[in-house]
Amino acid sequence: MSLHPPLPDRLKAGPPALAAWCGLPDPSIPGVLAREAFDAVVIDMQHGAVDFAAAVRAIPLIAAAGKPAVARIPVGEFATASRLLDAGAAGVIAPMINTLEDARRFAAVMKFPPLGERSWGPHGALSLTGLQPGEYFRAGNGLSLALAMIETREALEIVDGILDVAGIDGIFIGPSDLSIGLSQGRELDPASAAVEKALDHALARARAAGKIAGVYAPSGERAFELARRGFQLVSIASDTALLRSGAQMALKAARG
Amino acid sequence: MSLHPPLPDRLKAGPPALAAWCGLPDPSIPGVLAREAFDAVVIDMQHGAVDFAAAVRAIPLIAAAGKPAVARIPVGEFATASRLLDAGAAGVIAPMINTLEDARRFAAVMKFPPLGERSWGPHGALSLTGLQPGEYFRAGNGLSLALAMIETREALEIVDGILDVAGIDGIFIGPSDLSIGLSQGRELDPASAAVEKALDHALARARAAGKIAGVYAPSGERAFELARRGFQLVSIASDTALLRSGAQMALKAARG
Amino acid sequence: MSLHPPLPDRLKAGPPALAAWCGLPDPSIPGVLAREAFDAVVIDMQHGAVDFAAAVRAIPLIAAAGKPAVARIPVGEFATASRLLDAGAAGVIAPMINTLEDARRFAAVMKFPPLGERSWGPHGALSLTGLQPGEYFRAGNGLSLALAMIETREALEIVDGILDVAGIDGIFIGPSDLSIGLSQGRELDPASAAVEKALDHALARARAAGKIAGVYAPSGERAFELARRGFQLVSIASDTALLRSGAQMALKAARG
Amino acid sequence: MSLHPPLPDRLKAGPPALAAWCGLPDPSIPGVLAREAFDAVVIDMQHGAVDFAAAVRAIPLIAAAGKPAVARIPVGEFATASRLLDAGAAGVIAPMINTLEDARRFAAVMKFPPLGERSWGPHGALSLTGLQPGEYFRAGNGLSLALAMIETREALEIVDGILDVAGIDGIFIGPSDLSIGLSQGRELDPASAAVEKALDHALARARAAGKIAGVYAPSGERAFELARRGFQLVSIASDTALLRSGAQMALKAARG
Amino acid sequence: MSLHPPLPDRLKAGPPALAAWCGLPDPSIPGVLAREAFDAVVIDMQHGAVDFAAAVRAIPLIAAAGKPAVARIPVGEFATASRLLDAGAAGVIAPMINTLEDARRFAAVMKFPPLGERSWGPHGALSLTGLQPGEYFRAGNGLSLALAMIETREALEIVDGILDVAGIDGIFIGPSDLSIGLSQGRELDPASAAVEKALDHALARARAAGKIAGVYAPSGERAFELARRGFQLVSIASDTALLRSGAQMALKAARG
Amino acid sequence: MSLHPPLPDRLKAGPPALAAWCGLPDPSIPGVLAREAFDAVVIDMQHGAVDFAAAVRAIPLIAAAGKPAVARIPVGEFATASRLLDAGAAGVIAPMINTLEDARRFAAVMKFPPLGERSWGPHGALSLTGLQPGEYFRAGNGLSLALAMIETREALEIVDGILDVAGIDGIFIGPSDLSIGLSQGRELDPASAAVEKALDHALARARAAGKIAGVYAPSGERAFELARRGFQLVSIASDTALLRSGAQMALKAARG
Ligand SMILES: [Mg+2]
Ligand SMILES: [Mg+2]
Ligand SMILES: [Mg+2]
Ligand SMILES: [Mg+2]
Ligand SMILES: [Mg+2]
Ligand SMILES: [Mg+2]
Repeated sequence: MSLHPPLPDRLKAGPPALAAWCGLPDPSIPGVLAREAFDAVVIDMQHGAVDFAAAVRAIPLIAAAGKPAVARIPVGEFATASRLLDAGAAGVIAPMINTLEDARRFAAVMKFPPLGERSWGPHGALSLTGLQPGEYFRAGNGLSLALAMIETREALEIVDGILDVAGIDGIFIGPSDLSIGLSQGRELDPASAAVEKALDHALARARAAGKIAGVYAPSGERAFELARRGFQLVSIASDTALLRSGAQMALKAARG
Repeated sequence: MSLHPPLPDRLKAGPPALAAWCGLPDPSIPGVLAREAFDAVVIDMQHGAVDFAAAVRAIPLIAAAGKPAVARIPVGEFATASRLLDAGAAGVIAPMINTLEDARRFAAVMKFPPLGERSWGPHGALSLTGLQPGEYFRAGNGLSLALAMIETREALEIVDGILDVAGIDGIFIGPSDLSIGLSQGRELDPASAAVEKALDHALARARAAGKIAGVYAPSGERAFELARRGFQLVSIASDTALLRSGAQMALKAARG
Repeated sequence: MSLHPPLPDRLKAGPPALAAWCGLPDPSIPGVLAREAFDAVVIDMQHGAVDFAAAVRAIPLIAAAGKPAVARIPVGEFATASRLLDAGAAGVIAPMINTLEDARRFAAVMKFPPLGERSWGPHGALSLTGLQPGEYFRAGNGLSLALAMIETREALEIVDGILDVAGIDGIFIGPSDLSIGLSQGRELDPASAAVEKALDHALARARAAGKIAGVYAPSGERAFELARRGFQLVSIASDTALLRSGAQMALKAARG
Repeated sequence: MSLHPPLPDRLKAGPPALAAWCGLPDPSIPGVLAREAFDAVVIDMQHGAVDFAAAVRAIPLIAAAGKPAVARIPVGEFATASRLLDAGAAGVIAPMINTLEDARRFAAVMKFPPLGERSWGPHGALSLTGLQPGEYFRAGNGLSLALAMIETREALEIVDGILDVAGIDGIFIGPSDLSIGLSQGRELDPASAAVEKALDHALARARAAGKIAGVYAPSGERAFELARRGFQLVSIASDTALLRSGAQMALKAARG
Repeated sequence: MSLHPPLPDRLKAGPPALAAWCGLPDPSIPGVLAREAFDAVVIDMQHGAVDFAAAVRAIPLIAAAGKPAVARIPVGEFATASRLLDAGAAGVIAPMINTLEDARRFAAVMKFPPLGERSWGPHGALSLTGLQPGEYFRAGNGLSLALAMIETREALEIVDGILDVAGIDGIFIGPSDLSIGLSQGRELDPASAAVEKALDHALARARAAGKIAGVYAPSGERAFELARRGFQLVSIASDTALLRSGAQMALKAARG
Repeated sequence: MSLHPPLPDRLKAGPPALAAWCGLPDPSIPGVLAREAFDAVVIDMQHGAVDFAAAVRAIPLIAAAGKPAVARIPVGEFATASRLLDAGAAGVIAPMINTLEDARRFAAVMKFPPLGERSWGPHGALSLTGLQPGEYFRAGNGLSLALAMIETREALEIVDGILDVAGIDGIFIGPSDLSIGLSQGRELDPASAAVEKALDHALARARAAGKIAGVYAPSGERAFELARRGFQLVSIASDTALLRSGAQMALKAARG
């Protein structure tokens, strides 16, 4: 993976980065997608079937294709974030960052002191980056991307505070959960007007804070629209969805 | 998976069956594809990265979607064919059946005596079919599909002989290897005129013998054409190809 | 797995359900036991050797046999509960729910808003149930079974409060830990008089609250007794214990 | 595992050894059964779902319980026999040894020159036995048990010849396949009169040759009978069967 | 593994114990190192690539070599500590114990009531130790080693308090993180004067408290020095470092 | 991995290449060793515990370090050789090539027609090399290294014939088996005078044939000597041996 410029800097400078999104447990899938024209590959440990062992095997395969590996951790499993960075992940997305305390705990595991409390031991990262320990220690906080998910009403209300937490590089918006939260559990509609408004607001606040705004898109079309709107990181669908759409397209042609 | 009518009978009666083709080692992929509108799912142990353990885990996931699981074994690994049937595979494709002896050895591991020499022990198959041992023993030879790959000049020359081997339910044509063989190693062109002619010939001989003709298609469009031509089983592309085409389509939309 | 009626409703309506209890890491074991006459299969991630990857592989094998998969999570690992539901588990048992706060945190990860805070992404569950996203979102809170383990003196004292937490469908009693707790660490005796009394009390309180009472039984005989007493869900022994008793019975016959 | 006396010598001297029979892919199952009162544990790679990786993980767990690990290889996969010995297996059962050539090929992979052609590299075996390379090289042929399966009419007719092959330590009879073979495919009945007669004959010939006779028993009761009849090694049922019988017994008690 | 005397007692009585340190995910590596002249083997789940499934497979291989298996858990994942003891680990090292509350939570999961809150279910431990449930319940708190890592300025300041927590058997010092903490994030230098002074202080306080002091050493030479200084448990380098040093030594000889 | 010049050409042109030798099943080990100063990494599927799934996972990790991955297959498992090339292996070592027929069968699976009979489907190789199908088809026979092991008296006698087989790129000598063979099973002494003489002879014959001579060395010192003698490929010890020597060196320093 390229370290120049570091992933957080690259996302800030744009153009919008498009990321594959992987929830199947087989490391060869992120390996395949990393060789397509994505700018990054996200491994989903929250809603995907990927566990730590699978993530650790996927990271070098993504890196071998020259792409940054980003992982989404399960809700509140912050220790896993450090372990993923140790294994060579370029970034971590933490779901359900709903309080400033959540954001501070997440930042703490993502950054070395004095900024945070990340513990030393980046064995895989040293091997993948080729950096010496001292180099990595000095550069590490700038290399690792910490994205806090904004996906509840509570989070949205304190988005400025979250963006202000030192060590948080940006936010990542989950439209489905946000639609549930904004409707107080009445509907699941990631394209609702309330969500659209929230997306604009969160994006504007991130830009105002000089930080990164990322978002999940269920399709390429939606990704196009969100990237054009200004999101610096847009993930697209999921590996299962891509596989299924590839299959459906082929079957349609085959059935005539 | 449905046992009524058995897979060989179903393929003979038509309409053409379309099969997914899986070479990635993760059982969840055939599981996903089995829930799409394919009629069967092929697990490729010859050129794919699938080993026996992965195949054994994929078979019940395919069966749970009500689809027959078919496996392609590595060249000459006939003992694996029996083991796959034991695990519940509905059929086996054997590559590089180039002599009558190859065909006989393949038939032997696919069918119980007196037709063949398959050894008793279908633990997974009993569990997936719900049949009692005695029932399975009596029905087994009719349930299991044995397809011999025709993919060299030598094989093509004796295709009638191969089709005549008791226990061989049909043939499956590999156009890439056939193009290499027919050109004596001069070219890799699965759509060459020589291959086209060979496809017609082999299909006609299978039909004349009252047996099944299957073929590999690299795309849905090609599958449509081959199914219309009369092949009873047409596999489409590969899981990796479907995943990549899904990704490329999404990226194209996302890049605008 | 049957969704009609949902598992919580089925348990409330009775008759008592008997569950297998699996602690070995191989998914084929719950797969085998799901095809026996158990009403459900529990995968034990607390004291068993089962990790998330193994649980995710076991769930579709249990579902393929038409049975609900229930998982016990490690103490306090609530994020895992959501991930198991995402993968298609029909219920989760949470050990050591010793405070109302524990119960509320557990309920939160088990139920979508407004009842709880479960995050959206039930990929495996959609595939196993065949429901559409909107259907699953509306039905999900009624489908997923949340059982809080009562296994300390502290828990027993607030059992009414725990049963009163919205989103908690019932309790599940662990007699071994309860015997340790009730004796203040003096003895391990899951059949002590103090435990017996506690079982009756907890069962009565659950019934009074109109919620489910489950319990672990080390043997079929004990399960019979506990089911007759009124527990709606009784797990039996463990996979290792069943395997060992099968082996000992066979060896006894073989030694003559 | 005890090396004194070596397993072949121990079986010859008697009393009859009872073996567990494992076909599930999880190494913890042979590990559990090795701690029960079995004299050996067989891992079934022919009809079981066990592949080489699983077998290699099971062997040290069986050895840690002080028991010899024996593996049944798939039909004709003789190279695997050597690899299992390298990994520390105490013996190998080869199915479908139907010709003298089969027997010679099997013996060749089981014994070092000049007796056979086994290649040097017993890494796991050195570690598990604690022997030095020179010691193991000199002792190896006496330590490793080579059992040829007699399970067809053809094999039965040349049983004396098979027993006479240098390096073959004995035979192991498969009653199910034998019943199919003796009835020329008309029936599956491992308890038929023809099988009974064949068992007596094969046992007598093995004893006359001063070699070992082993046999598969589907139950403890049958094992008792076969051991009393004089078989020196009797395997009992399978891990799945033991698990199911343990479950059925518990469920019967629980249903009352 | 030897239980006489229990590991905590053995470490207190000395001589210094030297431990291998494993971060690669393959259980065969701790298995290999356990047969070398180490006194214990540590499996690193914090900075290593080892997950729970891998740890559970490593523990019996270490035990089979007669050595105690010790695991380091990820930061704050205390439930995993109990699960590792259940699987047969002889001890657990918990990183980043920075408050008395951290220490108490760690002790709670390591010890049964009334000392702690460890839940009953030591399936692997019963099998590996051969103890009966009642025996293990009574002996367990004395058998399991709980080491709290001291690796921040905050921890160092309250080291007496941590050592005073009932159920904490001793401390384990992480010099790299300590160097970062003591320099307030200015340097990574595990051999700094500040670290040296802290090592002496922490060692003295552990000795004064009659508890165990352990420490990580990056090399054999450093381990020698730290053991001579009085640390009762000194881990050496890591599996990767040992493999690399073995490789470099061999390559140096080979390059001439 | 570098394709320019292809591995066979590079070995012919010299200087001698030194290879790591891996028998442990974890792909991260060849990954670690590939980043040391070895020129290639051999994965041993004959005497090592590496199966196909593990090899397929190791190959991209070795390639990511820019080194060629070479695999040794089990005796006679020629279909596996093709599958390893498909997965991206740069070469295959086939043990026990004792007849011209063995050599021809090995060459056949290693080379496309008209030279051999390798079947088309190099999915992993295309991905790792970045070549297009047509490019790979034309270049493939020159890229893949086929080394026949000479390790018996019979093989030594026909070494010229083996070297003369089209598609065989060279030989690889196994001194341990050769010592057994040359002494007719009387001794295991890879450094015997008879072996030394055989090494010189085989090396001379390979050079005379313009083909590659490789050899296994148990230590760096021996590798130095054999490389100086003229062998173009010398493997060193094994991963286990390197790990153990690293451990022993560290322990020696630590014990003082
Ligand atoms: Mg979300
Ligand atoms: Mg082909
Ligand atoms: Mg409990
Ligand atoms: Mg048989
Ligand atoms: Mg640390
Ligand atoms: Mg050799």
